[in-house]
Amino acid sequence: MTTVKDSVHDYIELCPTAEALLDTAAMQRLRYVRQLSTVQLVYPSANHTRFEHSLGVYHLASRAVDQLGLEADLADRLRAAALVHDVGHGPFGHQTEAAIERHLGRHHDEIEWLLADTELGDVLEDRGLDPREIAATVDGRGPLGELVSGTLDVDRMDYLVRDAHHTGVPYGTIDHSRLLYALRVVDGELALEDGTVATAESALIARTLMNATVYRHHVSRIAGAMLDRASERLLVDDVFDPEAFARLTDAELLAAFEDHDPTADFATRIRERDLYKRALWARREAVPEDVVGLEYDRTRTVEREIADAAGVDSSAVIVDSPSEPTSPESRAKILVDGDVRRLEERSALVAGLDACAREVWRLGVYAPEEHLDDVRAAASTILAVETDATR
Amino acid sequence: MTTVKDSVHDYIELCPTAEALLDTAAMQRLRYVRQLSTVQLVYPSANHTRFEHSLGVYHLASRAVDQLGLEADLADRLRAAALVHDVGHGPFGHQTEAAIERHLGRHHDEIEWLLADTELGDVLEDRGLDPREIAATVDGRGPLGELVSGTLDVDRMDYLVRDAHHTGVPYGTIDHSRLLYALRVVDGELALEDGTVATAESALIARTLMNATVYRHHVSRIAGAMLDRASERLLVDDVFDPEAFARLTDAELLAAFEDHDPTADFATRIRERDLYKRALWARREAVPEDVVGLEYDRTRTVEREIADAAGVDSSAVIVDSPSEPTSPESRAKILVDGDVRRLEERSALVAGLDACAREVWRLGVYAPEEHLDDVRAAASTILAVETDATR
Amino acid sequence: MTTVKDSVHDYIELCPTAEALLDTAAMQRLRYVRQLSTVQLVYPSANHTRFEHSLGVYHLASRAVDQLGLEADLADRLRAAALVHDVGHGPFGHQTEAAIERHLGRHHDEIEWLLADTELGDVLEDRGLDPREIAATVDGRGPLGELVSGTLDVDRMDYLVRDAHHTGVPYGTIDHSRLLYALRVVDGELALEDGTVATAESALIARTLMNATVYRHHVSRIAGAMLDRASERLLVDDVFDPEAFARLTDAELLAAFEDHDPTADFATRIRERDLYKRALWARREAVPEDVVGLEYDRTRTVEREIADAAGVDSSAVIVDSPSEPTSPESRAKILVDGDVRRLEERSALVAGLDACAREVWRLGVYAPEEHLDDVRAAASTILAVETDATR
Amino acid sequence: MTTVKDSVHDYIELCPTAEALLDTAAMQRLRYVRQLSTVQLVYPSANHTRFEHSLGVYHLASRAVDQLGLEADLADRLRAAALVHDVGHGPFGHQTEAAIERHLGRHHDEIEWLLADTELGDVLEDRGLDPREIAATVDGRGPLGELVSGTLDVDRMDYLVRDAHHTGVPYGTIDHSRLLYALRVVDGELALEDGTVATAESALIARTLMNATVYRHHVSRIAGAMLDRASERLLVDDVFDPEAFARLTDAELLAAFEDHDPTADFATRIRERDLYKRALWARREAVPEDVVGLEYDRTRTVEREIADAAGVDSSAVIVDSPSEPTSPESRAKILVDGDVRRLEERSALVAGLDACAREVWRLGVYAPEEHLDDVRAAASTILAVETDATR
Repeated sequence: MTTVKDSVHDYIELCPTAEALLDTAAMQRLRYVRQLSTVQLVYPSANHTRFEHSLGVYHLASRAVDQLGLEADLADRLRAAALVHDVGHGPFGHQTEAAIERHLGRHHDEIEWLLADTELGDVLEDRGLDPREIAATVDGRGPLGELVSGTLDVDRMDYLVRDAHHTGVPYGTIDHSRLLYALRVVDGELALEDGTVATAESALIARTLMNATVYRHHVSRIAGAMLDRASERLLVDDVFDPEAFARLTDAELLAAFEDHDPTADFATRIRERDLYKRALWARREAVPEDVVGLEYDRTRTVEREIADAAGVDSSAVIVDSPSEPTSPESRAKILVDGDVRRLEERSALVAGLDACAREVWRLGVYAPEEHLDDVRAAASTILAVETDATR
Repeated sequence: MTTVKDSVHDYIELCPTAEALLDTAAMQRLRYVRQLSTVQLVYPSANHTRFEHSLGVYHLASRAVDQLGLEADLADRLRAAALVHDVGHGPFGHQTEAAIERHLGRHHDEIEWLLADTELGDVLEDRGLDPREIAATVDGRGPLGELVSGTLDVDRMDYLVRDAHHTGVPYGTIDHSRLLYALRVVDGELALEDGTVATAESALIARTLMNATVYRHHVSRIAGAMLDRASERLLVDDVFDPEAFARLTDAELLAAFEDHDPTADFATRIRERDLYKRALWARREAVPEDVVGLEYDRTRTVEREIADAAGVDSSAVIVDSPSEPTSPESRAKILVDGDVRRLEERSALVAGLDACAREVWRLGVYAPEEHLDDVRAAASTILAVETDATR
Repeated sequence: MTTVKDSVHDYIELCPTAEALLDTAAMQRLRYVRQLSTVQLVYPSANHTRFEHSLGVYHLASRAVDQLGLEADLADRLRAAALVHDVGHGPFGHQTEAAIERHLGRHHDEIEWLLADTELGDVLEDRGLDPREIAATVDGRGPLGELVSGTLDVDRMDYLVRDAHHTGVPYGTIDHSRLLYALRVVDGELALEDGTVATAESALIARTLMNATVYRHHVSRIAGAMLDRASERLLVDDVFDPEAFARLTDAELLAAFEDHDPTADFATRIRERDLYKRALWARREAVPEDVVGLEYDRTRTVEREIADAAGVDSSAVIVDSPSEPTSPESRAKILVDGDVRRLEERSALVAGLDACAREVWRLGVYAPEEHLDDVRAAASTILAVETDATR
Repeated sequence: MTTVKDSVHDYIELCPTAEALLDTAAMQRLRYVRQLSTVQLVYPSANHTRFEHSLGVYHLASRAVDQLGLEADLADRLRAAALVHDVGHGPFGHQTEAAIERHLGRHHDEIEWLLADTELGDVLEDRGLDPREIAATVDGRGPLGELVSGTLDVDRMDYLVRDAHHTGVPYGTIDHSRLLYALRVVDGELALEDGTVATAESALIARTLMNATVYRHHVSRIAGAMLDRASERLLVDDVFDPEAFARLTDAELLAAFEDHDPTADFATRIRERDLYKRALWARREAVPEDVVGLEYDRTRTVEREIADAAGVDSSAVIVDSPSEPTSPESRAKILVDGDVRRLEERSALVAGLDACAREVWRLGVYAPEEHLDDVRAAASTILAVETDATR
C-alpha cells in the first residue's frame, strides 16, 4: 500500500486511482496554491497548500465511505471527487474567486471544463470513473455529493483542523472522528445520528471562531481586496484569458502583476507586505442598509466617487463590503427520535453564533497610508457611515 | 533555577517559596486526588491530578504577574495563592464538595483553617506571607484575588486546557497566552483590553463544550451522586469527623466505604464500574419548576418516597436535580473604548451559550439495573415528569 | 460500534469481546495501577494507568492484525491477549515485580493462574477463546505471540508514545504507524520488511532515551527500591499471601504499609515525597565487577553490613545494583534482500546505544538524609567503590 | 508588546528592532523560500518557510540571552543576528547553495554584502547595530556568535522541531527548553552544564534520524541535483548575475528555468513531480574511495562520460556523490566536573551515530525513466560500482 505522511492525519493510504490522479499536472499545481492565500501575512506559519488539504479531504472521505459501508462504485466516486475537489481553484484560492466568476462565469466547484478532454479526465476514464459524475459530486450534486460539498462535508472537517494546526490558533480543532462516527445515510441523504447536537455545534463554533480570528482578519481582507482589483485589471487588459488565469499558481499571478505596469505596484505591496491600510472600518450598525453587500459594479463606481472626492487615483481606494454572513452548517440534518431535522431547529446555539458572525462583520475602505485621512473623509460622506464608529 | 516538566506547559520554573510549599504533606496529598474525579470512568486517560493542575495554575499566575508588572509583594502573594488554591478540596474534588459543605460548613475555597497552625501555614509565614491574606486570595478576595478565583482566573485557564489534553477532547483548547496578554488592571480590578471580545468568548465556549461532553457526562454524574450518598452516610455515621474526611485521598475514601458496611456496595460498584443506571433522564422542559435544583433535604425525602413506591431500599434510588447553570465568565470585565463593561453586554454569543447550557441540563434518577423499571415508574409519578421525554 | 476516547490514539473501537473483558473486576483494577508507578514523583503529569495503556495495546494489536490480514481466530486471540496482557501486574507494576517473583514464583507475564476459574477466564471461554492460549500469547509463546510480547511488540509501541505524552518528554515519540506498516509474517514469525532499519532503530533510540530521562531516573529508582523493601517485609510478615498481594492496587499497597508498623515509615515517606537520598551513586567503571547486578540475598547481606558499619538500623540502607542493561529490540528480525536478519547485524547504531545504556547505569546506595555521610563512608569501603566518582 | 503567533512556539514577542527588520523586503522575501525546498515533494505538508523559521530562531535566541543574563548590547546583537541569519539563502535554500558558492564565491552565512548599503543595513544602523558585527555573528564569529551558528546554535534547535512538526515525522522533537536551560558561558564560550550529556545526545540523535528520513530522502536529493544543474546552466548562460540569482524566490527560479530553453524541461519536471529516477543507488562499501565526495568539475566530467557511453544527452545524467557526513554537534562543549570537554569525548553514542550516518550515505546516479537501463550500465562501469549493491 502506498502511504503519504501528513502533518494532520499522519499516514494517508492511497488507492491506485488516487495515485494516478495525484500524478497529473492539474493536481501537482495545487502544491503551489496556498490553502489560506494571504493569511500567511498575519499568521506566518500558514503556508499549507491545497495539495495537502486535498489529500486530507480524500482521507476523510475514505474513512467516511468505509464507516457508512457504501458500495464500491459510489465509494470510488466519492473518494476521487474528494481528491480533485479543489482543482477548480484559481491562484490564491478564494481571493481571486470573484474575479474568475465575473470573467469565466464559473464557480470553483464547477470543474466539468477541467475534466473534459484533459489529462485529469483521462485518468478518471481509465479508472472507469465518469468525469461528469465526478464534476457533479464536486459540486455537491448526485448521490451523497453532499459528503464532498454540503453542510456536513469532509472539506470543512479537514480545513478547520488543518488551518488551526498551521496558524497555531487553537479554535479549529473539531473532533472530526466523532463527526464521522455520527454520519448516517437516511433516505439517500446524510444526517447525523440522534444525540449528536453538541458534536454538530462544535463544528459550527469552530468555523465561527476561525472566521473571527483567521479567515476574516483585516490584513488578509485588505490583501485579498488588492488581489481582486489587480486580477480584474489583468483580465480586463486581456493579459490572460480567464481559463488560463484560473490555472495560474500564486507565484505566477504575482509575477504577472509585476510584469504588467498598471498592477506592478500591487505586486510589490503584497510581496513586501506594504499593504493598504484601513481608512474606514465600520460595524454593521454604523452602515446604511444599502451599503451592505455592495455588488461589484456599484462598488467600483463608489470607489471612483470616493477617489474623486479625495483627490486621489481611483486605484488608491478599495471598498470592501461583504454580504451578511450565512452559516450553511446550521442547516445540517440531524436525527431526532428518528426524524430528520435541521440543526438550527434543535440547537440553542445557532442563533447566538449567527449574531456572533454579524458582530464580526465590517465594512472596510482601504487606501495607501499617505491618503488615509483624505479617503476616510470622502468615504464616510459618500457611504454615509457614522465616522465615530470606525473601529 | 528549579524547573519541573509538565505535559501541558512544558517546563515550569519554581521560585523558592513554591518549592517549599510543594514539600508539604498538604500539597503532596494532591497527587492522590484526581482532577476530574470519576470522569476517568468515561475518558480513561483522564487521570491527571490536582497536584499537576496546581503547578499549572501557579505557572499561569507567574506569567500573569510578570505580564502585568505587579510589585513583588503582591506577585508573591498571588503566586503562592495560585499554588495552594486547591488544598481545600476533599477526596474526588467537586464530587464530595456538597457533603463536606453540609457537615463542615465550609466551601473548598475557604482554606483559612488549613493554613492556621499547620505545616503549610508555617511555610508561608517563614517566607513572609500572611496565611490569612493567602486564604483570602484563594477565596477571590483582596487585591487581584480574582486572578486566582474570579471570572478571568488562571484556575479556569489551566483546567480547560489540561482537561482537554487528558481526556483527548479537543474543545477545551483555549488560547491562554492570548488571554494573559489581554489582561489589564483597571482601578485595581482585572479587565480584558479593548478588542478582545472574541478571546473572552472562546473561553466561555470552551467551558460550555467541556460541560456538555466531559464535566456533565451522565456516567460521571451517576458516579458522583453515588459518592455523595456514600460520603453522607460515612459522615452521619461518624466514621470520620468532617475535617479528617476533607483531607482523605480518593483511594482512602473508597477504602473507607469498603470498610463500612452500609457503604461497601457503593465502593465495589465504583471500583468495578458497575454503576447505577438512569431510570429517568429528563430535559428541562419536561420537569416541573419546583423540581429543578432540588435542595438536599428535599432530595433525600423524595428519594425515600420513590423508593417506597417502587418497593426498593432507599439507598437504591438517587435523585440528581442540579441547579440551572450559571456562567461566571459572562460577567468578565472588558474594556470598550476605555470603559469597563461586562462581557455579556458586548457579546452576542453569551445568550446563545446560556441557552446551550440549559439545553444540556438534565434531571436524573438513578438506580441499580434490576430496579430500573420500578424506579422509573415511581419517579415519574412522584416528580410529575413527562415520561416520554426521558432522553 | 462502541468507541472509547484515548488521549494518545484518539478513538479506539472496541469489539464485543473487548467490551466484555473490560467489564471484569480484574481489568477495572488496572485503573488504579499507575503505568509509571513512582515516576510521577519526578514528572508530575505521569499519572496514566495500566488501564488506558491496555486499551492502547489492544488498539495497536487490532491495527496490526488487520494490516497483516490474519485469520479471524488468530486475530481474536491476539487482540484479547493484548488487552489483558497487563492483568498480572502487581501494585506499582515493575516496582513490586521482583518481590512478587521471589514469593509467588511467577513473572507478571505468566497469567495462567489469573485466567483459570476466574471471571476473566469465564469471559474468554464464553467468547470461544482458550484461556491457556491467551496466557501463552501474553507470555510471548504460540503463533505470533511475539506481537504481544517480543522484540517488536505492540506493548512497547504503546508505552513509549504514551509515557512521552504524559511525562512531557519528547523522546518517546516513535512512529508506530510506520512500524505497523513495516510488519511482515515470515515463516510464522514477525519481521520488518526490507529497508526499514531506520524505523527499527528509532524505536530502540526512543527506549534508550526514555531510560535515561524517565525510566531510570534516580528519584524513581529510590522510591522503587523503598517499595521493594517494604513489600518484602509485608510478604515475609505474612500480611498478605503473595497472590492477594499481587492483586492490590497502588493505593491499597500504600495503605497496607501504613497499617503495618515496620513499613509505616516507608508509606509516609513515599506519600509525602520525603525519600531516601543517594549516599552513593557510582558509574560502571568505578564499581567492581562482582558488585554489578547483585543478587537479592547478597544485596540484603551487604545492606546489613553497611548498616552495621555505619551504626544505623538495617532498614536505613538500601543497595540498588541493577544488572547491566540489555536491549531486546536489537534482536528484532528484519528482512534484508529477502533473508531474515537480526537488527544488531544490520544497524551501526545498536552498539552505540548499548554503550549509551551502560553509560546510564549507576550503582546506588540510599539512606535517610540524616545518615548520608555515615552510610556513604561505610558503603564505599564495603563495596570497594571509588568515592570520588560518585556522580 | 507586538506578538506574532507561531505554530511551533505559540506567541513570539517582537522587540522594536525585530519589527523594523521584519518590515524590510529582504526579510519579507523569506516568506517565498521554503525551509525544506523540495522535501515537500515527499512530505506534502512541509511547506514552512525560512520566514517563520527566522522568527523561531529569533525567539530561541531571545530566550537564551535572557537565560544567560547577557548585557543589553550583546543581547541586541545576538537577537538581530538570529532574525536575519538566513537572508543569505538563495532560492530553494541549500539546494542552490553550491551553485551560488561556485559563482558568487560566498557561503549563505556570509551576508556582509547584503548588509552594506541596503535597506536591511540601514535599519540595523538606525537601531545602533553595526552591520559588520551582525554579519560576523551570523557567520558564527565574534562574542557568542556560536549561539547563532555553532555546534549548539538556536538555528538547529528551531529547525529540528519545526521540520518535524511540518513533515509529521516524530524524530526531530528535541527538548529545546532543556537545551536552553543547560547553556552556560564559560570563558566567553558556550558550553552545556554538567550532567547534560543525554540532552546533548538527543539533539544529535534527532539530526541523525531527520537526515535518514527527511533531509537525505532520495526524492529530495534527486530534485536538488536537478535544481543544481539547472541553476548552473542559468548562471553559465548569464541569465542572471550571481547576486541577483541569490536573491530570487523559489517560484522566480522555477519561472526563470521555464523561460530559458535549456532548462525548461527541468522546470516542468520539478513542478509536475516527474523527476529523474535512480539509475544507480549504491552504499558506501560498494563505492570506490575516489568516487566518494566527487568534486564538482570531476562530477560533470564523469556525467559526460556516462552520457557518452550510454548514448544519451549529457543533461540526462546526474551524478550525486556527497561527502562523507560530519556531525558538528559532536564537538559541542560540555562541562564535566568543571572542565570543558567535547561531547564526543563523553558520549558513547557519538561513534554509533557517526556510523549510522555513514550507513545512510548513498552514491546516486539519476536519469530520465526511459534511459535508466543504459545509464545504469554505463555508470557502473565508469564509476566501478558493484551493481548488485544498488539498494
